[in-house]
Amino acid sequence: MSKKTKIRSTVDFAAEGKHHGYLVIPHSRDQSAWGSIELPVSVIKNGDGPTVLFTGANHGDEYEGPIALVKLRAALEAEQINGRVIIVPALNLPAFRVAGRSSPIDGRNMNRVFPGRPDGSISEMIADFVSTEILPLCDVVIDFHSGGKSLYFAPTSIIHDVPDADLKARTMAALMAFGAPLGLVLTELDNLGMLDTTVEEMGKVFVSTELGGGGGTTPETVAIAERGACNVLRHFGILAGAPEGETRLMHTPGDSYIAAGDDGLFEFMVDVGDTVQAGAPLAAIHYLEHADRPPLIHTAPKSGMVIGRHAPGLITKGDFVALIGEDYESQI
Amino acid sequence: MSKKTKIRSTVDFAAEGKHHGYLVIPHSRDQSAWGSIELPVSVIKNGDGPTVLFTGANHGDEYEGPIALVKLRAALEAEQINGRVIIVPALNLPAFRVAGRSSPIDGRNMNRVFPGRPDGSISEMIADFVSTEILPLCDVVIDFHSGGKSLYFAPTSIIHDVPDADLKARTMAALMAFGAPLGLVLTELDNLGMLDTTVEEMGKVFVSTELGGGGGTTPETVAIAERGACNVLRHFGILAGAPEGETRLMHTPGDSYIAAGDDGLFEFMVDVGDTVQAGAPLAAIHYLEHADRPPLIHTAPKSGMVIGRHAPGLITKGDFVALIGEDYESQI
Amino acid sequence: MSKKTKIRSTVDFAAEGKHHGYLVIPHSRDQSAWGSIELPVSVIKNGDGPTVLFTGANHGDEYEGPIALVKLRAALEAEQINGRVIIVPALNLPAFRVAGRSSPIDGRNMNRVFPGRPDGSISEMIADFVSTEILPLCDVVIDFHSGGKSLYFAPTSIIHDVPDADLKARTMAALMAFGAPLGLVLTELDNLGMLDTTVEEMGKVFVSTELGGGGGTTPETVAIAERGACNVLRHFGILAGAPEGETRLMHTPGDSYIAAGDDGLFEFMVDVGDTVQAGAPLAAIHYLEHADRPPLIHTAPKSGMVIGRHAPGLITKGDFVALIGEDYESQI
Amino acid sequence: MSKKTKIRSTVDFAAEGKHHGYLVIPHSRDQSAWGSIELPVSVIKNGDGPTVLFTGANHGDEYEGPIALVKLRAALEAEQINGRVIIVPALNLPAFRVAGRSSPIDGRNMNRVFPGRPDGSISEMIADFVSTEILPLCDVVIDFHSGGKSLYFAPTSIIHDVPDADLKARTMAALMAFGAPLGLVLTELDNLGMLDTTVEEMGKVFVSTELGGGGGTTPETVAIAERGACNVLRHFGILAGAPEGETRLMHTPGDSYIAAGDDGLFEFMVDVGDTVQAGAPLAAIHYLEHADRPPLIHTAPKSGMVIGRHAPGLITKGDFVALIGEDYESQI
Amino acid sequence: MSKKTKIRSTVDFAAEGKHHGYLVIPHSRDQSAWGSIELPVSVIKNGDGPTVLFTGANHGDEYEGPIALVKLRAALEAEQINGRVIIVPALNLPAFRVAGRSSPIDGRNMNRVFPGRPDGSISEMIADFVSTEILPLCDVVIDFHSGGKSLYFAPTSIIHDVPDADLKARTMAALMAFGAPLGLVLTELDNLGMLDTTVEEMGKVFVSTELGGGGGTTPETVAIAERGACNVLRHFGILAGAPEGETRLMHTPGDSYIAAGDDGLFEFMVDVGDTVQAGAPLAAIHYLEHADRPPLIHTAPKSGMVIGRHAPGLITKGDFVALIGEDYESQI
Amino acid sequence: MSKKTKIRSTVDFAAEGKHHGYLVIPHSRDQSAWGSIELPVSVIKNGDGPTVLFTGANHGDEYEGPIALVKLRAALEAEQINGRVIIVPALNLPAFRVAGRSSPIDGRNMNRVFPGRPDGSISEMIADFVSTEILPLCDVVIDFHSGGKSLYFAPTSIIHDVPDADLKARTMAALMAFGAPLGLVLTELDNLGMLDTTVEEMGKVFVSTELGGGGGTTPETVAIAERGACNVLRHFGILAGAPEGETRLMHTPGDSYIAAGDDGLFEFMVDVGDTVQAGAPLAAIHYLEHADRPPLIHTAPKSGMVIGRHAPGLITKGDFVALIGEDYESQI
Repeated sequence: MSKKTKIRSTVDFAAEGKHHGYLVIPHSRDQSAWGSIELPVSVIKNGDGPTVLFTGANHGDEYEGPIALVKLRAALEAEQINGRVIIVPALNLPAFRVAGRSSPIDGRNMNRVFPGRPDGSISEMIADFVSTEILPLCDVVIDFHSGGKSLYFAPTSIIHDVPDADLKARTMAALMAFGAPLGLVLTELDNLGMLDTTVEEMGKVFVSTELGGGGGTTPETVAIAERGACNVLRHFGILAGAPEGETRLMHTPGDSYIAAGDDGLFEFMVDVGDTVQAGAPLAAIHYLEHADRPPLIHTAPKSGMVIGRHAPGLITKGDFVALIGEDYESQI
Repeated sequence: MSKKTKIRSTVDFAAEGKHHGYLVIPHSRDQSAWGSIELPVSVIKNGDGPTVLFTGANHGDEYEGPIALVKLRAALEAEQINGRVIIVPALNLPAFRVAGRSSPIDGRNMNRVFPGRPDGSISEMIADFVSTEILPLCDVVIDFHSGGKSLYFAPTSIIHDVPDADLKARTMAALMAFGAPLGLVLTELDNLGMLDTTVEEMGKVFVSTELGGGGGTTPETVAIAERGACNVLRHFGILAGAPEGETRLMHTPGDSYIAAGDDGLFEFMVDVGDTVQAGAPLAAIHYLEHADRPPLIHTAPKSGMVIGRHAPGLITKGDFVALIGEDYESQI
Repeated sequence: MSKKTKIRSTVDFAAEGKHHGYLVIPHSRDQSAWGSIELPVSVIKNGDGPTVLFTGANHGDEYEGPIALVKLRAALEAEQINGRVIIVPALNLPAFRVAGRSSPIDGRNMNRVFPGRPDGSISEMIADFVSTEILPLCDVVIDFHSGGKSLYFAPTSIIHDVPDADLKARTMAALMAFGAPLGLVLTELDNLGMLDTTVEEMGKVFVSTELGGGGGTTPETVAIAERGACNVLRHFGILAGAPEGETRLMHTPGDSYIAAGDDGLFEFMVDVGDTVQAGAPLAAIHYLEHADRPPLIHTAPKSGMVIGRHAPGLITKGDFVALIGEDYESQI
Repeated sequence: MSKKTKIRSTVDFAAEGKHHGYLVIPHSRDQSAWGSIELPVSVIKNGDGPTVLFTGANHGDEYEGPIALVKLRAALEAEQINGRVIIVPALNLPAFRVAGRSSPIDGRNMNRVFPGRPDGSISEMIADFVSTEILPLCDVVIDFHSGGKSLYFAPTSIIHDVPDADLKARTMAALMAFGAPLGLVLTELDNLGMLDTTVEEMGKVFVSTELGGGGGTTPETVAIAERGACNVLRHFGILAGAPEGETRLMHTPGDSYIAAGDDGLFEFMVDVGDTVQAGAPLAAIHYLEHADRPPLIHTAPKSGMVIGRHAPGLITKGDFVALIGEDYESQI
Repeated sequence: MSKKTKIRSTVDFAAEGKHHGYLVIPHSRDQSAWGSIELPVSVIKNGDGPTVLFTGANHGDEYEGPIALVKLRAALEAEQINGRVIIVPALNLPAFRVAGRSSPIDGRNMNRVFPGRPDGSISEMIADFVSTEILPLCDVVIDFHSGGKSLYFAPTSIIHDVPDADLKARTMAALMAFGAPLGLVLTELDNLGMLDTTVEEMGKVFVSTELGGGGGTTPETVAIAERGACNVLRHFGILAGAPEGETRLMHTPGDSYIAAGDDGLFEFMVDVGDTVQAGAPLAAIHYLEHADRPPLIHTAPKSGMVIGRHAPGLITKGDFVALIGEDYESQI
Repeated sequence: MSKKTKIRSTVDFAAEGKHHGYLVIPHSRDQSAWGSIELPVSVIKNGDGPTVLFTGANHGDEYEGPIALVKLRAALEAEQINGRVIIVPALNLPAFRVAGRSSPIDGRNMNRVFPGRPDGSISEMIADFVSTEILPLCDVVIDFHSGGKSLYFAPTSIIHDVPDADLKARTMAALMAFGAPLGLVLTELDNLGMLDTTVEEMGKVFVSTELGGGGGTTPETVAIAERGACNVLRHFGILAGAPEGETRLMHTPGDSYIAAGDDGLFEFMVDVGDTVQAGAPLAAIHYLEHADRPPLIHTAPKSGMVIGRHAPGLITKGDFVALIGEDYESQI
């Protein structure tokens, strides 16, 4: 038996003009036996230019995407563009509502359930709808991430080192057009279930970001997201004008991730964006309840730039401490 | 019947030298019927100079104090000082353990239960022990705060506009010695139950801080705390040398607090430390689930510096949005 | 030290005209260290007639009051009245927000914390503000209750058998004016901490209600609340016109309360408003998991009208099963 | 490897006479490592007439089924019947025990996990046992539902518009025999995982109900359930006598479901069972915390009878508001 | 205003014969607005002998008392006795119902709220009723405790070293009559709020116990409780016959309590009841997640018998590890 | 697409000598977006003897295994052995950390998810790594269990009645070598998903245990586990010397499990290890809240030894009450 989505869109993706609507997702629960979730989607279409999908809040506690996208949906008019812009400001709306990374309904990390299942949990149903109903319409996908509550990043846009040379070239061009201060070419260790992988396997351009973090935003990181979205539209000829901004290209070969060796009070000793030398102290884990124990010091496993770090003041054994990047050119 | 504390200290506050120990607080609970909480305390004493009490984690999700103080207790040796230094790196240890502002045991905000009760809840028992057993030994109290998970501050040290002129002069001198970038003279609206009030009513010098926030630290804010602690010890002659650093004095007369007018997605539009003009936009509350609703814009009620702000990406009606300060001199 | 309220009203109770505002209640918590609760209050004033206070959601899961009162505050204009109408549509706003009887913040039943404490929990602070700042302005208080999630009532207005004859006469007149189908003269067993008691002890007229229940409303019960509010305003000359509607007076002498004798599946066998004979079966408690156990049958302890009942399909030993009333006249 | 059920029945479905027992479902958990759930089942058998399965509490907060069925299993004796009656008064017993719609153990909606899995969660194991061990024995299934905590219905029996004409005729006859005031012929939008679908695909007669709601019962709705059960037994010749009661046939073509456009205080403005005209106001969503916002009014999208509604006093965006039905004859 | 209890007893403490009933405690809550708790109490009375009160489940996870007392209330007949026996098998019934030490309603440890408050929380109301309505009727109180979930004890009966010589003699005699294998004369460090203190301050005999633990019972510990109850009745002439059993008297002078120095995997290395030498290893705290860390070994601070220990396999810093007792005679 | 594990081991299973390390399991969550779980593993290897895997805390609240294994990994040196010893002291580390039987992350019983899934939940990923990366290296698996919080056992080692005669002989020999007081040959009713089954289906020797319980340990049960581990190493020639200890062989044919017939206060009336006669009382379920109800008595369904029992003082309908074993020889 062929299964199909239970999700219904109140907006017609093919209609010209600017239309706001919802993906209506049945959600039976104790508080509303016949309830539904209404996940906002906006479509702005004019002419026959390419289609870009913008998604925010793939993780519910990352805010640059949602803010830039609600402003974009308000500001962008059909007559300004040539092509189609699809905006989903909060892909994991249930997580967004509770300021959580993962969905409170099914506990799932949205970016590990792609391509989804039409008869699965809420997160899987959303992923399936995106994969089967929206992605086929798209040429480009920009998925806004930032550090969320537990991480901080120097503002970075990200692409994967996809095997297809042509796709990689188009993707690299989009990355440079986005114009974030840093650009990271990533070889993902665990790409199973990501939106990224689903889009790339369709041969489409995919650009992600890591902009700030800590569960909030700054004017700077929101501005990078807003400018990046417009830059991409300009790059693909949907908006007039040329992209703005310079990007420094990085990658993370070898031992780039540091994990916490113990539970404790966490002191990070450099700033994201700083350059460190191999062996320099990065972070201390202090033992507040044991005055006689010296702190555990984590040092840099190699020289490079601190691209991201653990944000909160407490840390647990096995938590991510920091990510060290190197200039991409230096490898060529 | 006169009630006395159930708390026992394993360290002798009068002993010469450096001693680490615990305040042992009986805590019967399902998991440990005859259990206790061991709250770390260190005492470093040499000669007859004055006594300073340093406290951190009065609110459990504020980390500059705990980090600076565990480093201070390790670094400071009795032979270096003339006087006594009492260090309580996590006054609300139960809250600190769970990264919460308030105690998970009794739900209390430690800084609203002073002077405490010997037969009260855990927080009240701790407050009572501090009030009756430790404060009488002290000349000066430095209580480290920062924004915690929900607030960000430009690094600021704080005193109250205490009525006694002599105490105010001594307190102001200690504030200037601390050397934080900003110094705030505050007329607290609601000072009932604060450690601050308890200390000030004893005629002792009390300095608090608001250093950063967001539930973590930066190298800069930790350094301000560490330097401030040493500066205070130097100022009172306990450590040799002179305090370092310049402090810009501010206060917050009139309509300085802005509260959120609605629930929504929160965009703060300036940086803490920025100067704003009256009427300039400070923050937007966006309605992600209602594409047709314009954002609610909060503007500055007066000109001044943004000293603090709401940190997270979501906001609830009635939440604190921002605090606007003015230079203290301008009022004189 | 004399303690005073930390609550601030943004509306001036003495101002002429119609004004909406909030009682601003400081509420520091993990999610908002400097947050507050904004509890809506509306004041409509014209001329020198008497003052009536209307309160809803004293218990947060009772909805006739909140609905009637948000409609009243929208509909009533200052020029229509002679006197003052103060409307607090959700006295226990935190409980209302989560559809709970009691406050999720302090776990308190608002109607057991009066007259409150200025330095107490959120519920106690609200009660104190009402007792000390609002009640002194009032001549009459109408406090809307209904059954909430766990009870159903035949629509009833309620007064207490207050000792002062004059107050009782004025109160009885107000009850009759309200115009609910039933009127109940209650000798409360446990009146400690009630708003009712606080008002009555000030010598003011107090009328309460029990309208429907089950955690929702019907058009009929909302209409009774709306009409009752207007009837009271008419009775006291604040609105023009005469009250409408007939009230049948009841009381509940002797053994009127039935409590559940066991846990089980609950079948109520008559309707609220029905007349029953002593000994007639009222309710069965079935043992679904024990097919061989006959149900426990609760019978009417006396003849009378079923005024209220347990609403949900499960019951626990000691839960209220039903209240039996008798005509008030029959006692005289 | 062929997987088989881990559930064991203590009652022999083939034995003559009346037997009560349990489906024993292994349930290892922290509180009982080798524990089990004992789900009551009764079998009453005499002669070679057809077999009817009655199920209640498919959703755990719907009580007419459980009450009618515990009374039926007590009252019905083998000698009265010709055939077999299988009674499962609480199909989702874990949900029933906690008064929840879905199982607290696996979070599943029992009526979305059919036909189940023998190696799945508790809900899936129960569904599998019913599908593979009980349904093959049955000719007819009557599954009692009502509105649960979140919905109210005019008392209605329900069948689906099954494609097979013969099955539809037999099903329609059973619906009419049941004798509820309303009968609804439903084209289910989302029938994946329902008991209904599983039974219908086996070519057996399936009748469901929606009787009342709000998380409790009334004497009227229990009586309809009890009479309906006996009517069905009479209709199939298992009990002597003829069915009683008249049923008005309805269906819900086109735009029959109304969903909430916002969060707020919910006022439903008509009664279930009332006839409304297209455009008439059905429900208001009030903004209690914003006195200046007019309510959102939901109107009837078409003329018809209000068959069901949202029950609680608060509503969330996307919640079901009401279902409008039309007479079934009018379509023919 | 003089406050009085809201609790009502359905049993008459002065009536001759054997009567079972309840203390009915009003308990308004979300699930039952007008609900109550029915706390079982039995009174068996004949003639004019003394009155003994037996209480169990003062802490809700201690079971020897409840088991012995439900068996005693069933077995004991009025004609067998001369005097009065009052049995409260579960003093903290709400805690007993959820297998918790403290009440799930108010979070209170029942044995720290005496003498209670008539207008307090549920635990305080129960304590007040016992203090003001039951204790004045009593000559002797036997309060059954055991280790609960977190502790194990060698079966011990306990008295306090009360200052009044006569009371101490009568109490010591009752202790010896009880006949537990061990008898402990305790100088309580923290006796504020205990039932013990309340009874002793009235000049009445009070005997407590610590029988086994771990959240369950053994046939041996239940038998000790049953025999102890009868022994006490015999000792006071309420039952005929002489007490049976030998008791070894212990006390715990000096450093008798050991507290855990760290969190970890807990291995207790001797049995309760064993005799240990000062310095011998008692317990190891292992670091399962750090293979390179040696365990923390706790040794006996003095020679003596291990009377009690921590029960669970994990331990937290500050938890009770063990109690060492010495023979009482050796001190004289 | 072939899926492979996301788990990485920091220890090389093929390296000679003694090495401690971790299985690093990616675990993205709200508190640590890029976090991981570090599950301890130790490998001790010397020469070409066979490989034994020891696992503890397959259920997180069973402690003999973890204690014996952290002591074994510390004590055992490579030069002592001929072969390889792999030690995983806490297979379900997340459950161990919270003292729970099942994982708090995915709610799964580790011993029902084998052989696991590489793309599954945390528990499934661990099971998959063990099944695909560790088990192929092993000749023998010893999996330590005990009763956990809810059960008590007489110390017993366990094997299954595997169909292959040669494997059964080797397994029986290992069981006897282990040297626990009791040995049980079990025909598992529900072996789907067990580590046991996965190992046995690979034709390898598998021995499990049930040692004590109640959520803690005794010196005796820890000693049995330690000795059993060494005995097995001796039996397989990895350690020098001969196994020690006698084992009495039991099995559990027919009706050996007793399940609770009701909820109530649980009194177990014999000791584990006792011999009982068919019909003798084993346990009473008392009704504390109903003084007039006699207890439900569970009797032994047959003669034999009580091998295990329910541990806590409360019991729920369907909970395991006791397991009765018979001597294995008597069947041959």
